[in-house]
Amino acid sequence: MEFTLEAKSGKARAATIKTAHSTIKTPVFMPVGTVGSVKSLDVHDVLDMLGAEIILANTYHMYLRPGDETVKKMGKLHGFTKYPKSFLTDSGGFQAFSLSDMSKPKEDGIEFRSHIDGSKHFFTPKKVIDIQLNLGSDIMMILDDLVALPATQERIALSIERTTKWAEESIEYFRGKQAEGVGVDQNIFAIIQGGTDKAFRTKSAQELCALPYDGFAIGGLSVGEANQDMYDTVEHTTQYMPEDKPRYLMGVGTPEDLIENIERGIDMFDCVMPTRNARNGTLFTSFGKLNIKGAKYKEDEAPIDPECNCITCKTYSRAYINHLFRSREISYFRLATIHNLHYYLNLMKECREAILEDRFAEFKADFYQKRQ
Amino acid sequence: MEFTLEAKSGKARAATIKTAHSTIKTPVFMPVGTVGSVKSLDVHDVLDMLGAEIILANTYHMYLRPGDETVKKMGKLHGFTKYPKSFLTDSGGFQAFSLSDMSKPKEDGIEFRSHIDGSKHFFTPKKVIDIQLNLGSDIMMILDDLVALPATQERIALSIERTTKWAEESIEYFRGKQAEGVGVDQNIFAIIQGGTDKAFRTKSAQELCALPYDGFAIGGLSVGEANQDMYDTVEHTTQYMPEDKPRYLMGVGTPEDLIENIERGIDMFDCVMPTRNARNGTLFTSFGKLNIKGAKYKEDEAPIDPECNCITCKTYSRAYINHLFRSREISYFRLATIHNLHYYLNLMKECREAILEDRFAEFKADFYQKRQ
Repeated sequence: MEFTLEAKSGKARAATIKTAHSTIKTPVFMPVGTVGSVKSLDVHDVLDMLGAEIILANTYHMYLRPGDETVKKMGKLHGFTKYPKSFLTDSGGFQAFSLSDMSKPKEDGIEFRSHIDGSKHFFTPKKVIDIQLNLGSDIMMILDDLVALPATQERIALSIERTTKWAEESIEYFRGKQAEGVGVDQNIFAIIQGGTDKAFRTKSAQELCALPYDGFAIGGLSVGEANQDMYDTVEHTTQYMPEDKPRYLMGVGTPEDLIENIERGIDMFDCVMPTRNARNGTLFTSFGKLNIKGAKYKEDEAPIDPECNCITCKTYSRAYINHLFRSREISYFRLATIHNLHYYLNLMKECREAILEDRFAEFKADFYQKRQ
Repeated sequence: MEFTLEAKSGKARAATIKTAHSTIKTPVFMPVGTVGSVKSLDVHDVLDMLGAEIILANTYHMYLRPGDETVKKMGKLHGFTKYPKSFLTDSGGFQAFSLSDMSKPKEDGIEFRSHIDGSKHFFTPKKVIDIQLNLGSDIMMILDDLVALPATQERIALSIERTTKWAEESIEYFRGKQAEGVGVDQNIFAIIQGGTDKAFRTKSAQELCALPYDGFAIGGLSVGEANQDMYDTVEHTTQYMPEDKPRYLMGVGTPEDLIENIERGIDMFDCVMPTRNARNGTLFTSFGKLNIKGAKYKEDEAPIDPECNCITCKTYSRAYINHLFRSREISYFRLATIHNLHYYLNLMKECREAILEDRFAEFKADFYQKRQ
């Protein structure tokens, strides 16, 4: 993986990440393709309508169904899904923690039951790397020890300690595999934990960033804390992260969250918000959110967002999209998802241009101005 | 509407129907777009991936939601849905009969309650024409008196009598509207009834075909009768239908049904089978049906149908489509629907070529041969 930092505007960064499968320009938002498919879209949509250079797939889901061995046989993620650009896969730890009926963090991994059939599984740092080697993702994430909040200081301290221990095990195991010729085109990121406690974040960042990872993520945010706490934690943590490697804020967020965290030095984001909200009727626009369910759109001939160039806005009226939503037509989900993801990806493009031209603060002011 | 009969091969016909919005080459299969959207597809799919020159929308559904007055304000069906080719709309009678909680055929129309909110409505021959004038469909269907089978001879006789009476009222009303400049680009078809009783079919066909309709449909088949009874009824009825006008067999059917009825002189078909079956996992191929749910497809790298040129077959393996189905991914519905409709539309193209080259019998033999 090649990382090139091209420009900064304040702390906001514009960079290029080159993987074996694509060239990713940052800041970047990665659409979530949980089971190897961005919900309601197909690969041609993701490529031709969105131009996404990287998407995320969930290790937990692919491991349980169809199984990472099957994915490997079918040509790994790229061969199986036919998406030819970059994949990032998470470690599966978060889903084992949040989706399964039962999950137990243990000294050497996470025990959980499948949400599909109740079968028992155990994720260790090595196991999730083996799975991700089978999946063939361009960027893999390591297993971290997640903590349900609120938690005692003692439990958070244990989480930081374990996460570092697992990170040491993970990087040694993965670099060893690469030395044997396995996963040579793959990359690996560690995940900084520590809640909103600055001392814990400092410790976790310092310990992990000393290890030879290809990039670093900030995990454990956007879990219910106040927005300002998230922004402060990111601002505090990025100062301990290397300038010459990608910085990924996991599971974030609203368009406002993206702008605020880009300003604090984040390069990469992922979130189910644009896809999930699309399905619920909440559409993002340059002037804020719009709920397409509203009766006021029943005879509205305007597109969802007159400033938007997506195929949905270029073709259909709010009236028709409102009709599809109310009729529970399957086509609604795709058209709304295309719009929301187009909005997110286009916002990232605009941020990048502003950074390259060193006018990010101005861009941010305009962004908020339009939403008033 | 211009109808040009180009060739016959036996009784099978190849013709061209020119409406104000498109040129339709027959035999033609019309995808069903119930609420003004072919389920799971968008207009670009219907145009670019299928090349469909005509689709069907349901008057009953559009009348109840969003309402034909709203559709009219939004530029009628073409302006509202942005599908620029031809629309055929049914009369709404069949849905009033089959979908609503309560429906009562009366001397001058059908009373029913909405399946959406239970509200009471009354469809008369004139009312359904007024609705279809608001919808702006290229081909409108008249109200007919449907009978639940089994029925007494007396009830069927009454149905034939009423259907003719309503057809007389309908054509007079519609031509009157056109004389006033309303619906001048629209066309109207009558519907022959009579179950599988040849005497009734003769009577209904003779009475209706004497009226100045633009085309004629055969209704009331594919409602549970034996296939051979359907084929015999069609063969019997077409002899009483004019050569120089389109013949439409409503709600039919399987690929085999299409072939058999084309052989008996039918030009136009519609059916929910390719779209509904796609959603249930049943896919049509040149070698017969395939149930993509099957565990045997889990690691099958072949496309659904190696002979198919649709985007689904050109891009994805059975393994991936099986995975999307099992994961209940929304994108499955679209990819499967594209495949099934592509199969149906392509089959019609092949039939047409065979008729133009006067080798329909041979084509039919090959069609069955491949399915053995």
